[in-house]
Formats: sequence, structure tokens, C-alpha cells
Amino acid sequence: MAGVEKKSRTLSRAERRRVAYHEMGHALVAASLPGVDPVQKVSIIPRGVGALGYTIQRPTEDRFLLAASDLRNRIAVLLGGRAAEQSLFDGDVSTGAADDLQRATEIALEMVTRHGMNTTVGQRTYAPSPQSYVPGAPTGAVQAADATAREIDVAVRDIISHAFDRAVDILKSRRADLDRGAEILLTRESLSAEDFPAIRPAKSEQHEAAPQHAPPATLVS
Amino acid sequence: MAGVEKKSRTLSRAERRRVAYHEMGHALVAASLPGVDPVQKVSIIPRGVGALGYTIQRPTEDRFLLAASDLRNRIAVLLGGRAAEQSLFDGDVSTGAADDLQRATEIALEMVTRHGMNTTVGQRTYAPSPQSYVPGAPTGAVQAADATAREIDVAVRDIISHAFDRAVDILKSRRADLDRGAEILLTRESLSAEDFPAIRPAKSEQHEAAPQHAPPATLVS
Amino acid sequence: MAGVEKKSRTLSRAERRRVAYHEMGHALVAASLPGVDPVQKVSIIPRGVGALGYTIQRPTEDRFLLAASDLRNRIAVLLGGRAAEQSLFDGDVSTGAADDLQRATEIALEMVTRHGMNTTVGQRTYAPSPQSYVPGAPTGAVQAADATAREIDVAVRDIISHAFDRAVDILKSRRADLDRGAEILLTRESLSAEDFPAIRPAKSEQHEAAPQHAPPATLVS
Amino acid sequence: MAGVEKKSRTLSRAERRRVAYHEMGHALVAASLPGVDPVQKVSIIPRGVGALGYTIQRPTEDRFLLAASDLRNRIAVLLGGRAAEQSLFDGDVSTGAADDLQRATEIALEMVTRHGMNTTVGQRTYAPSPQSYVPGAPTGAVQAADATAREIDVAVRDIISHAFDRAVDILKSRRADLDRGAEILLTRESLSAEDFPAIRPAKSEQHEAAPQHAPPATLVS
Amino acid sequence: MAGVEKKSRTLSRAERRRVAYHEMGHALVAASLPGVDPVQKVSIIPRGVGALGYTIQRPTEDRFLLAASDLRNRIAVLLGGRAAEQSLFDGDVSTGAADDLQRATEIALEMVTRHGMNTTVGQRTYAPSPQSYVPGAPTGAVQAADATAREIDVAVRDIISHAFDRAVDILKSRRADLDRGAEILLTRESLSAEDFPAIRPAKSEQHEAAPQHAPPATLVS
Amino acid sequence: MAGVEKKSRTLSRAERRRVAYHEMGHALVAASLPGVDPVQKVSIIPRGVGALGYTIQRPTEDRFLLAASDLRNRIAVLLGGRAAEQSLFDGDVSTGAADDLQRATEIALEMVTRHGMNTTVGQRTYAPSPQSYVPGAPTGAVQAADATAREIDVAVRDIISHAFDRAVDILKSRRADLDRGAEILLTRESLSAEDFPAIRPAKSEQHEAAPQHAPPATLVS
Repeated sequence: MAGVEKKSRTLSRAERRRVAYHEMGHALVAASLPGVDPVQKVSIIPRGVGALGYTIQRPTEDRFLLAASDLRNRIAVLLGGRAAEQSLFDGDVSTGAADDLQRATEIALEMVTRHGMNTTVGQRTYAPSPQSYVPGAPTGAVQAADATAREIDVAVRDIISHAFDRAVDILKSRRADLDRGAEILLTRESLSAEDFPAIRPAKSEQHEAAPQHAPPATLVS
Repeated sequence: MAGVEKKSRTLSRAERRRVAYHEMGHALVAASLPGVDPVQKVSIIPRGVGALGYTIQRPTEDRFLLAASDLRNRIAVLLGGRAAEQSLFDGDVSTGAADDLQRATEIALEMVTRHGMNTTVGQRTYAPSPQSYVPGAPTGAVQAADATAREIDVAVRDIISHAFDRAVDILKSRRADLDRGAEILLTRESLSAEDFPAIRPAKSEQHEAAPQHAPPATLVS
Repeated sequence: MAGVEKKSRTLSRAERRRVAYHEMGHALVAASLPGVDPVQKVSIIPRGVGALGYTIQRPTEDRFLLAASDLRNRIAVLLGGRAAEQSLFDGDVSTGAADDLQRATEIALEMVTRHGMNTTVGQRTYAPSPQSYVPGAPTGAVQAADATAREIDVAVRDIISHAFDRAVDILKSRRADLDRGAEILLTRESLSAEDFPAIRPAKSEQHEAAPQHAPPATLVS
Repeated sequence: MAGVEKKSRTLSRAERRRVAYHEMGHALVAASLPGVDPVQKVSIIPRGVGALGYTIQRPTEDRFLLAASDLRNRIAVLLGGRAAEQSLFDGDVSTGAADDLQRATEIALEMVTRHGMNTTVGQRTYAPSPQSYVPGAPTGAVQAADATAREIDVAVRDIISHAFDRAVDILKSRRADLDRGAEILLTRESLSAEDFPAIRPAKSEQHEAAPQHAPPATLVS
Repeated sequence: MAGVEKKSRTLSRAERRRVAYHEMGHALVAASLPGVDPVQKVSIIPRGVGALGYTIQRPTEDRFLLAASDLRNRIAVLLGGRAAEQSLFDGDVSTGAADDLQRATEIALEMVTRHGMNTTVGQRTYAPSPQSYVPGAPTGAVQAADATAREIDVAVRDIISHAFDRAVDILKSRRADLDRGAEILLTRESLSAEDFPAIRPAKSEQHEAAPQHAPPATLVS
Repeated sequence: MAGVEKKSRTLSRAERRRVAYHEMGHALVAASLPGVDPVQKVSIIPRGVGALGYTIQRPTEDRFLLAASDLRNRIAVLLGGRAAEQSLFDGDVSTGAADDLQRATEIALEMVTRHGMNTTVGQRTYAPSPQSYVPGAPTGAVQAADATAREIDVAVRDIISHAFDRAVDILKSRRADLDRGAEILLTRESLSAEDFPAIRPAKSEQHEAAPQHAPPATLVS
């Protein structure tokens, strides 16, 4: 979860509680979806530039290809933090999900404009508009007729909206875990799947022999 | 409240009255909304470049996260000056709110295009168009299909419009405070919450331990 | 009133008559609206680059804030020249109002896109498109969805159209003054409010103490 | 009338006939409209770069202001060549009117976007799009919402269309003069109002004293 | 007819047959339309960069003006190759007409945007968008409202479509000549109007005295 | 089939299976369409930058012209990999077809905007927008009215969609070959038409004498 960077980082009680639920939201959605990299650590200790908390996933194997379902799951994990905030604060979400939304947008845009994964938009690619090469402008327009650009916008919105609904549903059905996990997190500040078994992968999937070199961990803040 | 900068700053009686109501509008809306930084000082002494008056809010704690409700309240405070002018002058508003409108627009645009806080536009981010990197052009277009850009424009307009209506409602219900505060301001030129208790926060909220370093004050002109 | 610059400036009889009505139009509209700076001098002696006549207004005090009504009045004065031409020549207007139209457009655009003075467009600001920073291109597009840009265009058009109708109405009700003023102007070439009392402000408004430094005069050509 | 520039300029009999009618079309329309500069000379002798014929008008006085009716008449004169071709060749017009159309377009665009002479578009100015500053791109887009740009396009089209219809009507009612003038022109190659009285101004207008310096002649090719 | 340039140019039997019909299509359409420059030579010998065959027309006189009908005929000749391919291969056209289509597009665009030869678009000119000055981008957009740009696109399409239909009709009525000409061409590789009288101009037109310098030949590949 | 480039390339069992079906999809579609270059080799040995497998086609002769049917077949072959994935994984396609989609898009765009092969868009060319000259942006917008750009987008989509449906139909009717080929490929890692006769061209077409220099092979990854 991202926040404003300040020198002394003393969050208010309400802010720490929001961060704890946000991170636990990422972790529980990751633990509930098949094929998602397992959660290694969840923390509400501020870190680096602007991160008020983080969730680390460690892949069990290298991935060379990602299916549409994998990408949809990744988006759902990214939106798990926002989904937890929404449940807890009755819809009064915060600025802490900005990075999550941007990464989710990037994945959804790639699915639609590069991988042909939306039926309406079709199995063609769209060149990014050169305007999007501006630093700090990672999500952007494509070169298309306006009606086509609109179809792309709607497709991106639908992918994100469905992923968010799945995250909300998962957290609703696991509300006790969410509350319990956030409580532990507020006490201990960080925890692993050993400390809190609820964030272990739902089904102990059959993994192949571990890769010879360790794949890099994914960090969702 | 911003005005045209001139060497000798002798406002007419009508202009001073408008400035006093404008600043008192900011202060009373700030005092009426929960979670808004308390007003420290209100003044109609011209200051710096083009400011004909100002209102200073001093935060009681650092903020790392802002909820959608916090941002909506900030916009309402920014529009409090215009709302006071509108009530007083029967809708004949002035050029003195230009800076307030620009800051309100910037916050509303961030809510919609970066923080996913509008349901229609959805939980995705939009890259700012590179055209908006022009100096002096702080509010701008995003990279989106035209129908999507229109949804964003409508969402921004709605956020600002609702915040303005709230400011108008607050000032209507506190008209006596508005008139009395402006009158004192015209006499004394500046006042604090000690001088005029009506601008103290509505509910004495429970603040946590004061931050170790003093957070910077917010100045609304 | 602006015209084509030529070395020897000998206007035809018809052209001089048009210029006289045009300038008298500015002056009489200025004299008929409350709060407008009083007219000091009206002239049909060509001046500087391309000006075939001019009207000078001298403010009685510095202005730091302008109300929406003030800006609407300024536009009406600017359109007073065109309104006089229209009445006199049965709608066959000329190229002499180009500067007036451009200044009126600039004021109306500022009202709508910077000062939130149109209800439909709303109380937000619009960044000018960088395209408008081209020299000689003072009025321009803003960064907005096309439907929003159209609302802005319609709002600007409405402001100008209503101001023009007011100018036409004023001149219709003061047709005798218009004819008489133009006649004197054609004979004397220039006149002041002392020479022709009809261009004195309608109501002798109560002005405050004169400013210590003389505010600059406004010149409408 | 403009044509392709070639070293040896030997037009075919059909081409010379078309040029003669084209130039006589300019001259007769000019002679039939009030306030238009009188025709001094008509020629079908090729001249300069690409001109296959030309018509010279000599103004009787300097003009500092042009009324909307003057501009509409100028457009009608410019389209007189095309109108004559259309009558003669049963609608099979040629590439020889390209310069006429461009100049007519420029005048109509100025009327609509700079002089407020179209009721729908209104009395405001539109900045030319910076794109039109490209060399060789004299007619161009303005900065406006698309619906407004369309209104401008339609207004320009209407002005040109009405002017063309007037030119066609004039030539229809003066068909005998057109045929006779073209015949003389084919024989003599050039002629003046003395040679062919039909191209003298319709009404001997009352001109003021001739200007001290000779105004420049207008050349329509 | 244009093709991919390769070092050794050994076309397959099917390709040679396609080229022969394509060139004969140009030649027969040229021979069937009045006022079109007569065909001098037709060849299926590859030539220069990428040309797999060519048709040479030699004008009988210089042209300074081109009527709309002349331009429509030129487009029909350019599309004659594609029309022949379409008849022969049951609509399965090839990449060999790319240059023909580009030249036809350029002529049609000039007719509509520079010569006022389309009634809907009207007798005005449109400046090319500066975007079209890119090397290799000879056909391009104009500066106009979107609805106007669409009218231009439709007008260009209609001109080309009608010219293509005329070419198809001509070749349908002269199918025997088409088959016979292609057969001879496949045998001899090139032929002139002397070798194959069917490609002589339909009506021996009355030409004026031959120009003193030889006009350049037109080459359609 | 393209994937993410990594130093040690150890694909999971599921990924290898997907790659094998993907490549066999290319090969079987190529073998089933008339006039398509015959498949020489199919492999699931990773190669170069990011290629997880590849299919090599070797042309039997130089091609100077390509018919619309040839281009449609090429697109079908490119989409054969995606079609195989879709059948096998119940629609859960992967990121491995990105390069195939881009090349298919490029061919379809050329057909529509350069070769006049779509009836709605017509037989004209469209200049690519200069925006598409950005490195890494090979598919792009054209200069056209928005409604025309939309027709082009729809035409491209239709061409790709029909080609994909043909690939799906072919693989459905040859499902046994697809399963068998993938099985062999998973065991041997690469195979030729000798190893697996099902990927030989459907009809042993009559080829002319082999070209003197060997035409370059086509590689679909």
C-alpha cells in the first residue's frame, strides 16, 4: 500500500488499521486463487519510498507463458487491498491503492491490446500512441478509431471490474480470516504463512521440481 | 482569495466586504466538516502575489492516507469562499475564486483518474496527456476514448458540484455566523478561533498524540 | 474600430460615417451600464496601427476583483460598436470590429474556463491546449472531452450573444443620442462627456476617495 | 485562370475557349455587382507562373473597411470564372479555378472565424490551429469543438455556395454578353471596358474625389 | 503493375498471366475512353524497381487544363489493371495494384479538396494536414471538422468506385480483346497499337497540330 | 511461440504441452490450405530471444505477387497456434501468441489500407499516420475521418476473425493429427514432414521448375 512519503513515518491508529486490512486483502485473495504464487510474508512496516505496507509472493517455478486466467488472477490479487478497504470502511476507499490500480490497468491494457484476450476488441494488436512514451505516463491510449478506443476502454474496465468483484466475494466469504489476520498484523507488524495458515494456498498444488535458480519474488505494496 | 496584483493595494469598500465573506466562507465550511484540519487564522490583509485574503488551517497530525471523504471535504472547503460570495451577492460571483477552482479541479481529477474513486469511470488509472505538461497548465486531459474522457469530465463536475452544494448548505444554516464573522473581520482585519469560536471544529475530535515534528499548515487564499 | 493600415489615411464619406456610429456605439453602451468606467473621450481621428477611431474610458478607482456582471458589461461595451453598425447599415456589418470580437471572446473564455461562471460547464478550470500558445493565436481550445469542449463553445457564444443583444437594446432605446453623437463626431472629429452629456454615466455613482495613483485608462478602438 | 506551367505555352483551341469564357465570367460578374472595383482589362495571354488568362480590376478609392456584402461580392467575382465554365461545358468544370477557390475559401473563413459574420457561429473569433502555419497550407482548421468546427465548415460552404449561385444567375441573364465577350477575346486576346462596354459597372456609381496615390489594382487569374 | 523487387526475376506462369491481363486492362480501358492519351506500348518485361509490367501512353498534345471528366478517365485507366485481375481471377485480386490505387487516390483527393469537383463537399479548398508531409505518405488527411473529413472520404471513395465500375464494364464488353491481347502479350512480351489494333483509341479524335516539343509519355505500371 | 526471455529456460510440463500444441497448430493449418508454403520443420526447442518453439515453412518458388487469398491464408497460419491453444485449454489462451497477432494485424492492415482488398473501405490507399513511425509501434492508425478509421478497424477485425475461424475449423476436423503431432513433438522436441506426414501439403501442388536461388524460409514462432 502506497502513501505519501514523509521523514518520520508515524501513522495514526486509523491509518495503521487501514494498512493492515489492505495488506491482508492482498494476501487472502492470493491464497484463494489457483495458480497464484504463494504468499511468503505480509507486513505493515513502512518500506522504501511511500510504501506503508507490503505483501511478498514467492513463485514456485519460472513462468514463460501466462494464460488469460493467470493475468485475471493477478489483477484480482492487486485489487484485494482496495476490496478489503471497501468492506471495512463502508466504501470510503483511500489514496493508498494508486499503485495497485496502475499495475492492474497496465495488465488489463496488455491483455486487450497486445494479447487479443477480449472478444469484442478481437485478436489483433494495437500500437501504443507515441504520447504514452512520456515518463510517468505508463498507461495510455492506442492508435485506433474512437469507437475502437472506446471498446478497448470498456474491455479494460470490465476486466478490472470483474477481478474486483471476485476479490470482494473472496473477502466476504473469508471475513473472519480478514479480521483475524489484520488483528495479528496490527500486533506483530509482519507475519508469514507459518504464523497465519489462512494465507497458505487453498489447494496444495502439484509443483514440478523447483527451478535451479530462485525466481524473483513479487512484491505488492 | 486571489486578485489582480497592483502596487498600492487599496481595495474598495465593496471589494473588502466580498473578501471578508469569501474567507469566512472557507473558515466556516472547514469548521463544519469532520476530519478537516482546524482553522488557525483568517485574514483580509493582502499578502504576497495577488492574495487579497487568506485562511490558515493547521493539521493536528501527519496524514499518510486520504480517504475519498477527506478529499471531498477538502474540495468543499476550497469552494466555501465561492459559496459565501454566491449567497451574499445573489449569484454574482467574482474572479477571486480562480485559484480555489483550480485546486479543487486538480483534486477531483486525481480522485477520478488516479484513485479509481468514481464508479462509472472505474478502478483504473488514466495517464495524463503529455499536453498537460505545459507550464501553467496544471489541469488537463487524459489519454482515453472520447466517450471515456467525457465520463471523466462529468465525474469531475459532479464531485465539484456536490461539494459546492454542501458548502452552500453549511453556510445557509450558519448564515448568522457568516455575517457576524465577516463583520468582525472587516473591523479587525484578521481573527483566530479564539477570537471567533464559531470557526472551531464542530466536534472536538479525539486526536492522537501530537506528531513530533509540526506538520505544515494549509493556506487557502 | 480597426481597419487596414495604409500610408495615407483618407477614408471615404461612408467609411467615416460608419466609424462615427461604431465609436458612438461603444460610448453610449458604456454610459448606459452600471459600474462601467466612464467615457472620457470619443474620436474618429485615425491613430496608430490600423485604428480608425477610438473611445477612451477612465476608471474612477482600482479594481482588484471583477464580478461576473462586470465582465458581462465589458463585453457589451466591446460589442457596442458592432451593434451600432448593425442598426445603421441594416445588418451589413464590417471588418472593423475584429479586435472587439477577439477581446470579447477572450473575456468570455476566461469566464467559462477559469472562473466557473457558466452553470452547465461548472465550477472547474480547464487548462488551455498548448496549441493556443502560438503567437497571434490568443483565443483557443481547452483540454476536454469533445462534448465538454462543445459546452464551452456554446457557453462562450451565449455570453457574447446576450451581451450583444443588450448593446442592441440600449442603442435602440437611445437612437436619437446615437444619431446626434455621430453627427457631432463627424463635424468635430472628437468629443468628451462635457461636449456631449449623453455619454456621461447613467447614474452618478458614489465613488470612494480617488486612488492615490491614477489607474490606467481603457481604450476601445 | 491558373494552369500547369510549361515552357512553350501553346493551348489547344478548346483550352483557349475555356480560358476566354472563364475570364469573361469574372469580368461580367464584377460588372454586375454594386460596389465592386471596375474591370480595367481582360486577357487570355498567358502570364507569369501558370496563369493562362487574367482580369484586372482597378479600385476607384482606398478601402479601409469592408462590409459583409463587399466580401460576398468579392467571392462571387472569384467564382465567376468557374460559373462560366460550368454553363459552357455542361458542368464539366476544370482544374483552372484552383486559385479562385482557394482565395474564396480564405475570405469566407475570415468572415466566419474572425469577423463574426455568420449567425450560427456567432460573433466570436476562433484562433487558427497551429497546424495551418505550414507553408503552402493557407486555408485551415480552427481551435474548436468538433461540432463547432462543423458549423464553421458549413457556414463557409454556404457563403461560397450562395456566391456561386449568384454568379451563375448573373451569367445566365447575361449569356449573350458572355458569348460575345468570349468571342472578341478569342480574336483580340485582350480587351478593356472601352472595347466591350458590357463589362462597365452596371450603375455609374458616385465616387468621391480620387485618392491622391493610386490604389493597387486587383488581378483575378 | 508493381511487385516485390528481387534479384533474379523469374515469375511463375500464373504470375505472368496475371501481369499480362493487368497491363492489357490498363490498355483497353485507355483505348475505350474519349480524350485519353493513346497507348503506345504494353509490356510484361520487368523494369526498374518492382515493376513487373507497364503500359506507355503518349499524349498527342500538351495539356494545360484538365476537366473533371479527364481526371475521372485517368482514374479509370489506373484501375483498369485491377479490373482485369478481378474479372480473370473471380475477385481474387493481388498486391500488384498498390501503385495504381495510390495514384488514383491522389487524383481523387485533389479533385475533391482542391478543385471543388464534388457537390457535397463544395467549391472550397482544404489544406492538407501537416501530418501528410511525412516522406512516403502521399495521400492524407485534410484540416476539417470530422463530419467534413468524412464527406471528403466518401466523395473520394465514390469517385474511385465509379471509375472502377466503368473499367469493369469496358472490359466485360471487350472480354475477347482482353483474352486475345493477354495471349499475344504472353507470347511476344510486349506489343504496340500496330501489333494489336484493339488498343487504338476508339474514335480517331481530331487532334490539333502536333506540339513543337514532344510531351512526356505517361507510364502506368 | 514467443515467451519471456530468461537465462535458464526450463519450461514446466504444462508450458511445454502448450508450446507443442501451439506449433502443431501452425503446422497443420499450413498443411491444410492450398498455395501455402510447405512446412519443413516444427520444433519446441527454445531459440533466440523469447521464442519457445517455432515452425519453418520453405517456399517452393519466389513470389512476386500475392493474391488476397494468399494473404488470408498466411493470417490463418499465423493464428493456427492460438487456435490450437484455444481448443486445448477451453478458451484459456496465453501470452505466447503476441508476435503472431502482431504480424497478422500488419498483413490485415496492409490488405485494407494499401491494397484495396475490403469492399466497404474501397479501392483507395490511406497514408499511415506519422505517429506510427515510432520504433516498436508497427501497427497503427491511418489518416482518415473517424468513421472511416472505424471502417478500417472493423475490416481488419473481420479479416482476422474469419482467418481464426478457419484455423479453428481446420484443427477441429484434424483433432487426431493435432493430438498425435503434439505428442510426438513432446517426445522428440522437433520433427519434419518426413517424420509426421500429416503436415505435408494437402494437395501435392504442381510447382514449376525450382528457382535458381533458394527463396528464404519463413519462420513462425
